[in-house]
Amino acid sequence: PRIGVCYFPEHWPRERWKTDVDQMVDAGIDVVRMGEFSWGRIEPERGAFDFEWLDTAVSLFDDAGIDVVLCTPTATPPKWLIDDHPEILQAEPDGTAREFGSRRHYCFNSPVYREETERIVRAMAERYADADAVVGWQTDNEYGCHDTIRCYCSDCATAFREWCREEYGTVDELNEAWGTAFWSQQHASFAELDPPGHTVTDHHPSRRLAYARFASESVADYNRFQTELLRESNDEWFVTHNFMGHFETLDAFEVGEDLDFATWDSYPTGFAQFREPSAVTDNRLRAGDPDQVSFNHDLYRGPAGFWVMEQQPGDVNWPPRCPQPGEGAMRLWAHQAVAHGANVVSYFRWRRCRQGQEQYHAGLRKHDGSADRGYDDAARAAGEFDALGDLDPVDPDVAVCVSYDDLWALSDHPHAPEFEYLRLVDSFYRALRARGHQVDVVEPDADLDGYAAVVAPTLHLADESLAARFEAYAAGGGHLLVGPRTGYKLPDNRIQPDLAPGPFADLVGGHVDQHETLPESLPTRLTYRGDEYDFRTWAEWLTPDAARATGEYTAGAAAGRPAVLERSVDAGSVAYCGVWPSEELADALVTDVLDRAGVSSTDRLPETVRVARRDGRVWVLNFGSGPLTVDVPADATWYVGGASIPGYGVGVVDADVSDISIQ
Amino acid sequence: PRIGVCYFPEHWPRERWKTDVDQMVDAGIDVVRMGEFSWGRIEPERGAFDFEWLDTAVSLFDDAGIDVVLCTPTATPPKWLIDDHPEILQAEPDGTAREFGSRRHYCFNSPVYREETERIVRAMAERYADADAVVGWQTDNEYGCHDTIRCYCSDCATAFREWCREEYGTVDELNEAWGTAFWSQQHASFAELDPPGHTVTDHHPSRRLAYARFASESVADYNRFQTELLRESNDEWFVTHNFMGHFETLDAFEVGEDLDFATWDSYPTGFAQFREPSAVTDNRLRAGDPDQVSFNHDLYRGPAGFWVMEQQPGDVNWPPRCPQPGEGAMRLWAHQAVAHGANVVSYFRWRRCRQGQEQYHAGLRKHDGSADRGYDDAARAAGEFDALGDLDPVDPDVAVCVSYDDLWALSDHPHAPEFEYLRLVDSFYRALRARGHQVDVVEPDADLDGYAAVVAPTLHLADESLAARFEAYAAGGGHLLVGPRTGYKLPDNRIQPDLAPGPFADLVGGHVDQHETLPESLPTRLTYRGDEYDFRTWAEWLTPDAARATGEYTAGAAAGRPAVLERSVDAGSVAYCGVWPSEELADALVTDVLDRAGVSSTDRLPETVRVARRDGRVWVLNFGSGPLTVDVPADATWYVGGASIPGYGVGVVDADVSDISIQ
Amino acid sequence: PRIGVCYFPEHWPRERWKTDVDQMVDAGIDVVRMGEFSWGRIEPERGAFDFEWLDTAVSLFDDAGIDVVLCTPTATPPKWLIDDHPEILQAEPDGTAREFGSRRHYCFNSPVYREETERIVRAMAERYADADAVVGWQTDNEYGCHDTIRCYCSDCATAFREWCREEYGTVDELNEAWGTAFWSQQHASFAELDPPGHTVTDHHPSRRLAYARFASESVADYNRFQTELLRESNDEWFVTHNFMGHFETLDAFEVGEDLDFATWDSYPTGFAQFREPSAVTDNRLRAGDPDQVSFNHDLYRGPAGFWVMEQQPGDVNWPPRCPQPGEGAMRLWAHQAVAHGANVVSYFRWRRCRQGQEQYHAGLRKHDGSADRGYDDAARAAGEFDALGDLDPVDPDVAVCVSYDDLWALSDHPHAPEFEYLRLVDSFYRALRARGHQVDVVEPDADLDGYAAVVAPTLHLADESLAARFEAYAAGGGHLLVGPRTGYKLPDNRIQPDLAPGPFADLVGGHVDQHETLPESLPTRLTYRGDEYDFRTWAEWLTPDAARATGEYTAGAAAGRPAVLERSVDAGSVAYCGVWPSEELADALVTDVLDRAGVSSTDRLPETVRVARRDGRVWVLNFGSGPLTVDVPADATWYVGGASIPGYGVGVVDADVSDISIQ
Ligand SMILES: [Mg+2]
Ligand SMILES: [Mg+2]
Ligand SMILES: [Mg+2]
Ligand SMILES: [Zn+2]
Ligand SMILES: [Zn+2]
Ligand SMILES: [Zn+2]
Repeated sequence: PRIGVCYFPEHWPRERWKTDVDQMVDAGIDVVRMGEFSWGRIEPERGAFDFEWLDTAVSLFDDAGIDVVLCTPTATPPKWLIDDHPEILQAEPDGTAREFGSRRHYCFNSPVYREETERIVRAMAERYADADAVVGWQTDNEYGCHDTIRCYCSDCATAFREWCREEYGTVDELNEAWGTAFWSQQHASFAELDPPGHTVTDHHPSRRLAYARFASESVADYNRFQTELLRESNDEWFVTHNFMGHFETLDAFEVGEDLDFATWDSYPTGFAQFREPSAVTDNRLRAGDPDQVSFNHDLYRGPAGFWVMEQQPGDVNWPPRCPQPGEGAMRLWAHQAVAHGANVVSYFRWRRCRQGQEQYHAGLRKHDGSADRGYDDAARAAGEFDALGDLDPVDPDVAVCVSYDDLWALSDHPHAPEFEYLRLVDSFYRALRARGHQVDVVEPDADLDGYAAVVAPTLHLADESLAARFEAYAAGGGHLLVGPRTGYKLPDNRIQPDLAPGPFADLVGGHVDQHETLPESLPTRLTYRGDEYDFRTWAEWLTPDAARATGEYTAGAAAGRPAVLERSVDAGSVAYCGVWPSEELADALVTDVLDRAGVSSTDRLPETVRVARRDGRVWVLNFGSGPLTVDVPADATWYVGGASIPGYGVGVVDADVSDISIQ
Repeated sequence: PRIGVCYFPEHWPRERWKTDVDQMVDAGIDVVRMGEFSWGRIEPERGAFDFEWLDTAVSLFDDAGIDVVLCTPTATPPKWLIDDHPEILQAEPDGTAREFGSRRHYCFNSPVYREETERIVRAMAERYADADAVVGWQTDNEYGCHDTIRCYCSDCATAFREWCREEYGTVDELNEAWGTAFWSQQHASFAELDPPGHTVTDHHPSRRLAYARFASESVADYNRFQTELLRESNDEWFVTHNFMGHFETLDAFEVGEDLDFATWDSYPTGFAQFREPSAVTDNRLRAGDPDQVSFNHDLYRGPAGFWVMEQQPGDVNWPPRCPQPGEGAMRLWAHQAVAHGANVVSYFRWRRCRQGQEQYHAGLRKHDGSADRGYDDAARAAGEFDALGDLDPVDPDVAVCVSYDDLWALSDHPHAPEFEYLRLVDSFYRALRARGHQVDVVEPDADLDGYAAVVAPTLHLADESLAARFEAYAAGGGHLLVGPRTGYKLPDNRIQPDLAPGPFADLVGGHVDQHETLPESLPTRLTYRGDEYDFRTWAEWLTPDAARATGEYTAGAAAGRPAVLERSVDAGSVAYCGVWPSEELADALVTDVLDRAGVSSTDRLPETVRVARRDGRVWVLNFGSGPLTVDVPADATWYVGGASIPGYGVGVVDADVSDISIQ
Repeated sequence: PRIGVCYFPEHWPRERWKTDVDQMVDAGIDVVRMGEFSWGRIEPERGAFDFEWLDTAVSLFDDAGIDVVLCTPTATPPKWLIDDHPEILQAEPDGTAREFGSRRHYCFNSPVYREETERIVRAMAERYADADAVVGWQTDNEYGCHDTIRCYCSDCATAFREWCREEYGTVDELNEAWGTAFWSQQHASFAELDPPGHTVTDHHPSRRLAYARFASESVADYNRFQTELLRESNDEWFVTHNFMGHFETLDAFEVGEDLDFATWDSYPTGFAQFREPSAVTDNRLRAGDPDQVSFNHDLYRGPAGFWVMEQQPGDVNWPPRCPQPGEGAMRLWAHQAVAHGANVVSYFRWRRCRQGQEQYHAGLRKHDGSADRGYDDAARAAGEFDALGDLDPVDPDVAVCVSYDDLWALSDHPHAPEFEYLRLVDSFYRALRARGHQVDVVEPDADLDGYAAVVAPTLHLADESLAARFEAYAAGGGHLLVGPRTGYKLPDNRIQPDLAPGPFADLVGGHVDQHETLPESLPTRLTYRGDEYDFRTWAEWLTPDAARATGEYTAGAAAGRPAVLERSVDAGSVAYCGVWPSEELADALVTDVLDRAGVSSTDRLPETVRVARRDGRVWVLNFGSGPLTVDVPADATWYVGGASIPGYGVGVVDADVSDISIQ
């Protein structure tokens, strides 16, 4: 694994650049990213390109042996371009333009912007096609940041109509698939279809889901256009994009198909603040919530691994408040990423910025050039990564299924304000990580063959073919744990003709008699295999058929009714959980499915301790302020650290997860 | 009383319809409502009417002996119509269009939409003028749902100017009545008058009240237009409309004048969630708040009774959360409605819907056609209603005065965010219901002669002629209880020339020296007839004249000043309460006024138990999960149930309210 | 000092006016303000002026010996004028017009409105140029009320471009000063500059600060235009404006330069409600928060003193809730103003208004003409003021520095939602007042020579010349206390090239190593001179150089690092506090700096008791409901009241602050 950094030469005097590069070399930095917001510097007026400054910067890195990743600067079209073509701007549902003055002010479906994109991307790609230091490209920057995946402009209206025509062929087909007879929402022609604008109450859920898919695919299409332009100039370059954490409106699986590998931007202490107050603990404010971060590592990891393209370097500027990270946390995060399969961890940014919207964001160096708190952490991690050398990919026994379509469908009809799809996934994912398991995050239609167990927090939108895949998996000896709201709807967001779980009813061995959402004031209790547990938010009253009930409600209107079902399926098994489980219940459910799968779990780890296995080594990661003591087999070797791990520290040891114990 | 159901044949395959009708017959259903959102199905393109499907459905019901209520489908003009005439759309105060994509996207003042309305209503009315099964019509559906009474489009601007001209004659008269000298808000001509658009602070309260009246009258006028069209085709049809619960922006009394009787849509567990958290009890989440529901029964009941056009059939889709109702609650609600005078209770809907915005809303049957939880409840109620036979109207001794004008005036100047008119009414209404009284909800200018006592929670807007009516009522032996903020303003929302209660000062026998609104942190205590009570939000410092003070503040800046006045008026009496009373104080006040009126009250009932008398029978309604035991005279007959009433159960007995006691 | 009142003859029948004037005379009222919203009455249609009514009113006051202050009526242009020129209206960032229907619906940069202003102001000024009773003018009314300083219309766009050209000369200079290379925000010409419209995330902070300055200067320029018009007609008139309390978007220092003196509008119990709930005590709801009010007295006081142009007369209509003030509070506030240097205290308004948006606002008389609660208070104060006679100005030993530019810069980048500039100032100001000090509120570049000590809660935007002024002050024997976030940024809102406090580093004798913002859940503790204290929100990790650390963090990530620095500077001293201090810490810091300056402090006063010295007399002001006992030297004379001061009462005694003690 290697260490990188993000650098903005255009923000600093040219005479300083050499010093910066020298300091990067001193820290052991191997990779630098540049250029993602530089359009205004490269092309100050139409057609008047100025690449000399960037040539100079690239050549300084070339001299220093540092790899360069360049970015297409399309996230920030300059003012002159917007003034030439204001129709490029995105629009709100009520038609208000999203104006110039921040960033991401262009529509992915603008034909004019496609032309402008082609101009700037070709100019940059051709300029650096033969530059040895330039090893690859990042397209644009953080697609969709500030809620910009979904645009409602007239270019989008045109594109949406075309998208619907391609999706459905005839408008009658669309009317049938959506069920537009409801509230006289029939469309007589594709030309009648509009983006979902300002209405007095909810839009039709099928139209909303279609628009969510359309918008996400529009971005994927725009990104594909950029990747093709870049590869035309040099087909040895890798092309990637930097995704965001817990981002909901863009299907990262789909965009990922056009990339060599994915990268993402990781800000642990910022993310940790966007939770309910009781979850914002002191330790999470100082070192992040490990599972919140690792979920994204696992989500964006592909066959070729992944990068953290932007790693938090110290305090940041954008969360509600900005405490200083714990001492050493910047090194801890780098190790955490590598333990989950990262090949490069690239800090954002080299220096604190003196101007613009990101003032108050730390770098590895302060704005006066002196070392910031993260600099030593980064240098230390760089040395340790050199010593670890190249590592094999991670190799999980268990997969968690995630579907953006399910996320969008449930976001539109959550049935309780607190029913958030990614929080439901989190409940199962966290339980697995607390038991020491590496996890692959996969789409429901992924190849599940290699996994001993599969956890599907929900499989909300479903058809017969999806159910058949899971049936085959279980029949082939796989062990399944499936969560609530599964099989409720057809892929077009219309309720199944049969009772839930619809096409999964045979596999699950039962069906849903009723469901309810419950405020906190109502009792939410059940027994599972004889023990009492709590659950939250959602309850299904189940009727078993081939399955047996392993859980039963003990309170409320549901008292006495089954809540959890389980059955054997040939060599495999399936458990169906009709509620959103509490932490304790999720732990019991995932432990049981892994037991059935023959995979052993660790003792349940405290929330500030996580272990992760990669390439025969185990990372012991301490997200707490107090020290840990780790017992390992006598012959185990510590590659990094040792048996005593300080607060916010890390150790790497050649042992198996099941052979170590932690106090 | 009879049982009905709402049905959407256009959502289901035609081959299923006969089965549905058969199941309705099995359940004892007498009435079906259809068609309220069917414009897109009836007229898929302009002028191309397709009634064949509806003919078939009507004829199936005719064969089954089920009465049909048809609806004009004007709540959902189809997309082709909006594309032809986008000027039909409503507009927000800032001019943003309220677009197609949900429902209620038309302006009541659009001349174009009047033409379109005439086209579709005539087509439907003429089609079914001779259909025996069609017994009446519902106009449109839930006027104003999703806050659509008040539109701010240019058609409304034109109509508002005309309304003002008719209301005031000359613009000088308007300027004087409103007091536009304040902040230079004089109008030089009616042409200068606009809807209240986007301003940096409050609009003039008289202009706001005028717009509220104008908007409500616009809807009444539009509804009248529909009723006339329908009656032109068949003058034996009844015409009704389905109002909503606790709905604030439409004057239901005024619309009601053009209907044969009113109906409304009752969702007890949904309504119960829109209260302060402490009021959202477990029992209310399972069976609703009985007084919240009964108030609407009493509000919409007229000389010809009323219907519940949409009765909650199980769990619903639109409140914050959707717990399952308690076992039996769907039957309980049907009985509650009948006890308050309903002639038909019609469940919404027959089957759970597979598509569109109301997915997740229960029906009497599930979406796969099997029985949903409400089906047996409905069938049981149907049988019991058949056994009860036709019932006389309810006949209350006491009336509560409610005025939409007062509501609108106080909503605009609440003087404390928690001062909500309907909550103030609720405080008095609830006290009456807890003492076993049937209540008529009437306008302040209604004929009060028949009532032993009248409770006016406030008579905020007032003139001399209104005061004279109440003086005559008391002088004639009536007993009045009048609440705070009475007589503050003239009907045009300008302060009275004299101190409050203005024209009521003589009747009340005193005046208001000062008023204040109080946050929860300040003390709110008084004594009334020697006992201590709490109050909330609003306090008037009263000065008695002919009256004597029966209540006095004991804390805060008001300590020692009178808070409640009382005086005899010839054969009658009047009590004036200068505060928003606590539950205990409201109980004392209403008990006292009824005592003076010679009407006996029951013991104070727990909040989960209510009794209601109709046609010589008493309904004992249990809104709690635990059982009740009812003591009745030895010779009393139980028509429904018996002395032991289970949780969410009901009994009907031929006794007087004062003869029964409940444990 | 004198007593005044605000009067609206246009709201009342002409036959009443004489009675009103007689009652004013009875109360001892010396000054009346009129006309500020009267355009619609003066000019009911274009060019048709009607001054006869105002002539009559002025002449009635002339006869009664009451001075008249007239107002230009420009805050409320009439509807006919807006219909003639809708381009006068302000606009929201997204372009939505701020429409007619309330007030303040004109743009300060509208050339058309300048012409209209000139027309009406000239007409009024010429009409009354020779009226003896008219002693001066108030321009407009409460500039910026309802958030109207910043407009985003096309006239403002034009004016902003011109402002930028004048400020920066060339667009390259602007690009450099702002740092527009960030996110490609370079401007190629001034014509490209727009007001900050609707964007998907933050605008550039330098552009935002520029717009804040531009908007404030636009108002100052508009006000200057009015003052010049008025002085052209009669150069003996004084010209003033009535500012608002704790108002953030207008630089009152700058506007003040064009006025003879400032006035402001004081509503103590209203202001007190806009605080965190724990600060909204019963006493503050009844008598206001004394320091919140006095800060504004001190802010608006200039060499010629100040007036309270609108003094709360009783209950008001606009805060969340409106309790009645404590008995006597209306007199207490008048004395408080005079103790802080007021020459006139003018109550708003004479009578409760029967129409328009301010119904429910008390006057000195009720709407029926009888005495309201404040009438006797006002009359009593008037008598006491006559007895006190003319008073010398207040003469503080200590100044607090306040900068609107700092306020705007920090509002845009607070770095924690609770970091509010004026609350930070309040923390230091309150500590000084609790120790009996009179305080001047001055701009950072004011002449500091006369002050023994200066407290700068922050000096956020800074350059070398500002630092040099403070260095000279300390070198000359001055004693400084400087708060956090000082010297972070250059005046154009770009981070300093050096570490904070940038140009102040030499004076302070150290620099900021790191900073952090802290949620309430994280520990915020430090020791200062051996005692433990709490702080809030903001922490700087300091590195001393020439200074010594007098405070050190004892918890959190900062534990062990310096938090407060202090050093001697020739004859003077400087203390630098890197945190937002708790009340106790602020008390310790201000007490210490005043000790060093040789100024003695009183015992720390309870929050409901304040003392203030003016012209040899001390006002003892009781903002609590309970009585106080005051010990004074035996020979001291009580001018008002005596040693026993009742709740909400006041005493004035000829003693020194240090000679009295209060129980
Ligand atoms: Mg390396
Ligand atoms: Mg029947
Ligand atoms: Mg005087
Ligand atoms: Zn678009
Ligand atoms: Zn309209
Ligand atoms: Zn403007």
